[in-house]
Amino acid sequence: MNMPTISPQAQQLERFILEGIPLARSMQLELLAHDGLSLTLGAPLAPNVNDKGCAFGGSLSSLMTLAGWSLIELMLREHGQDCDVFVADSSVRYLAPVWEDLRAEARLQANADPATFLATLNARGKARLQVECLVRTADGTIAATLEARYVSKRRSP
Amino acid sequence: MNMPTISPQAQQLERFILEGIPLARSMQLELLAHDGLSLTLGAPLAPNVNDKGCAFGGSLSSLMTLAGWSLIELMLREHGQDCDVFVADSSVRYLAPVWEDLRAEARLQANADPATFLATLNARGKARLQVECLVRTADGTIAATLEARYVSKRRSP
Repeated sequence: MNMPTISPQAQQLERFILEGIPLARSMQLELLAHDGLSLTLGAPLAPNVNDKGCAFGGSLSSLMTLAGWSLIELMLREHGQDCDVFVADSSVRYLAPVWEDLRAEARLQANADPATFLATLNARGKARLQVECLVRTADGTIAATLEARYVSKRRSP
Repeated sequence: MNMPTISPQAQQLERFILEGIPLARSMQLELLAHDGLSLTLGAPLAPNVNDKGCAFGGSLSSLMTLAGWSLIELMLREHGQDCDVFVADSSVRYLAPVWEDLRAEARLQANADPATFLATLNARGKARLQVECLVRTADGTIAATLEARYVSKRRSP
């Protein structure tokens, strides 16, 4: 059910996630959109509910963490960088319950500088980048937010 | 595979989680220990790996968030309080990869006061409590930490 707009690279990353991370399969994660500056992951509500029938906090934070990770992975792949990307830390706020399918949109933080990030990665083989992510409901309500730092390490010099 | 030390109340909560939260079933979550002051959840590595073969960050944060939630749920049930408990916000640090089965231990934050929490809940029908949680590997390394605030709301006055 991918939209026709996502690139072959994004489709490949979606397969990589679903093959490598069993919990992403359990969540029925989908890569819905990617334009280089932002990336949106989705997941149906049913496998991601809690005891109250709305979205489980762990699903919301996992989806947002993976959206940020995917945004950086695709940026690195587009720049021909072969890296491992790890989340280093994150802050999540749960603002409103989500009673519908989940959508998490990640983008770089306003003060994050991809050029400096890539230069640091080239110079030191390791660099950090900050991402922010939102879960918004269909009526536009912001239901959850994440701010996270990711570390990228080059696999080969 | 519960240890004989956990109470019938803790066993009942484990069933409640596994029945109500499909992702907890996918993670194969277990309630391993509870002594009123702390609560430990476990999960095997296999369903919780990432693309690198170590624990998926989403599994670590979900397990820690649920450990804190379970600690408060059991405290409320022991005091005869019929509440909904929600996580309001959390900060997670990912410090070291986890290459083994996951264990997350939650306890109240040093400055959290259960007596004030219960008094506020009685007076206002709503109260907040702060929890900290650690994932430690078998050799004692702290692999991940969570600090989170939970809101409890009484269902019936």
